[in-house]
Amino acid sequence: MATLFHYPFCPHSRFIRLVMAEMGLESALVEEKPWERRQEFLIMNPAGTLPVFLEEQGFAVPGPAVIAEYLDETRGLGLDGRRLLPDNPAARVEVRRLMDWFLTKFHEEVSSYLVTEKIYKRFIGVAAGGGPPDMSAIRAARVNVRYHLKYIGFLIARRNWLTGPDLTYADLAAAAHLSCVDYLGDVPWDEDETAKSWYARVKSRPSFRTLLADRVPGMPPAANYADLDF
Amino acid sequence: MATLFHYPFCPHSRFIRLVMAEMGLESALVEEKPWERRQEFLIMNPAGTLPVFLEEQGFAVPGPAVIAEYLDETRGLGLDGRRLLPDNPAARVEVRRLMDWFLTKFHEEVSSYLVTEKIYKRFIGVAAGGGPPDMSAIRAARVNVRYHLKYIGFLIARRNWLTGPDLTYADLAAAAHLSCVDYLGDVPWDEDETAKSWYARVKSRPSFRTLLADRVPGMPPAANYADLDF
Repeated sequence: MATLFHYPFCPHSRFIRLVMAEMGLESALVEEKPWERRQEFLIMNPAGTLPVFLEEQGFAVPGPAVIAEYLDETRGLGLDGRRLLPDNPAARVEVRRLMDWFLTKFHEEVSSYLVTEKIYKRFIGVAAGGGPPDMSAIRAARVNVRYHLKYIGFLIARRNWLTGPDLTYADLAAAAHLSCVDYLGDVPWDEDETAKSWYARVKSRPSFRTLLADRVPGMPPAANYADLDF
Repeated sequence: MATLFHYPFCPHSRFIRLVMAEMGLESALVEEKPWERRQEFLIMNPAGTLPVFLEEQGFAVPGPAVIAEYLDETRGLGLDGRRLLPDNPAARVEVRRLMDWFLTKFHEEVSSYLVTEKIYKRFIGVAAGGGPPDMSAIRAARVNVRYHLKYIGFLIARRNWLTGPDLTYADLAAAAHLSCVDYLGDVPWDEDETAKSWYARVKSRPSFRTLLADRVPGMPPAANYADLDF
């Protein structure tokens, strides 16, 4: 069986957990605290980032986009009509464009700030950069999340899923990142009913269940985090 | 003919210029100043980032990694033995891992700081965030570049090119980003002869010629920038 090295509130790790669940791909889950910079982990992924997918025979695949491409190439064709990266070159461009939007842009502008300041820094020693949250980073993220929500609403007003008629990697990347922000109560869902209805649809999928059961010790989720009719 | 929207000192744009030259793919080059946030450009790429590859029939492909995947899928098979993204899934993981290393990690830690502070801010109005460079960002980048150079040296001591026996996207991404830093004189080549010899090999390829001819108005390159025997 393969192994996924992940952290429950790392949004990139959540993306791959969703992908694997949608593919029906089972794996052992190993929690990794990336800030500990464990030697054996750095050998698998010198960048020191999560997640890392480890094949049973010992081959390591690091990083959310690289894992997504690899799983599509090694397992995606077996999914037939449910392939998460479509066949058509133009459709692939749109899926990769929006996957990158959430894995890179949304991460830089929203989810990395919030997860780092509100969650990671609780567990990282002060000497290693932990401690109380930087409120200016949190405020910036709360401003930024609003235009991303509008962009999702804009796309979903024109398409069934973010990139077209079918659910793809782009929806899973977006929902994974939003789910961390939602745990923290920082998604202003009332500002965009269309985006909210799309998230409710993704959140209702069986692949989402284990994410909704995750808890930060000593920090309960926002009221509607695990509520499917929020 | 296709069009590439680029900026001469945008390292991501340089990567795609190298890729296209290696593929023998001609295109019109249009210089885009991303900080101007031109309306027509934002319609092609809502993220507002460079480069954008525009097919003759009007289909836009945005972002360095998305363009690289698209060009491989639409033109790569025709390159036969010279394919820049290899066929084998494990080799593809290693190429994508290192391509991402330079397009994301090196960019965040080195090239984005230096290009933004030393070049972009000369041309951006003060009201829009331009003006004199932030010396602390420049100092951070100059520290960071050293361990990246060591990592290149470490890899090249074991392999012919960065990911294995053949030149791939990873070499072109790394060399494109380093070339911008090299223009500014901020690569301490003397610290790693192995990395330097690899860069000399990439730099000598015909695909590199137009990059070596680029000039920032009023800011000549470092002494050995265009020198193939530096």
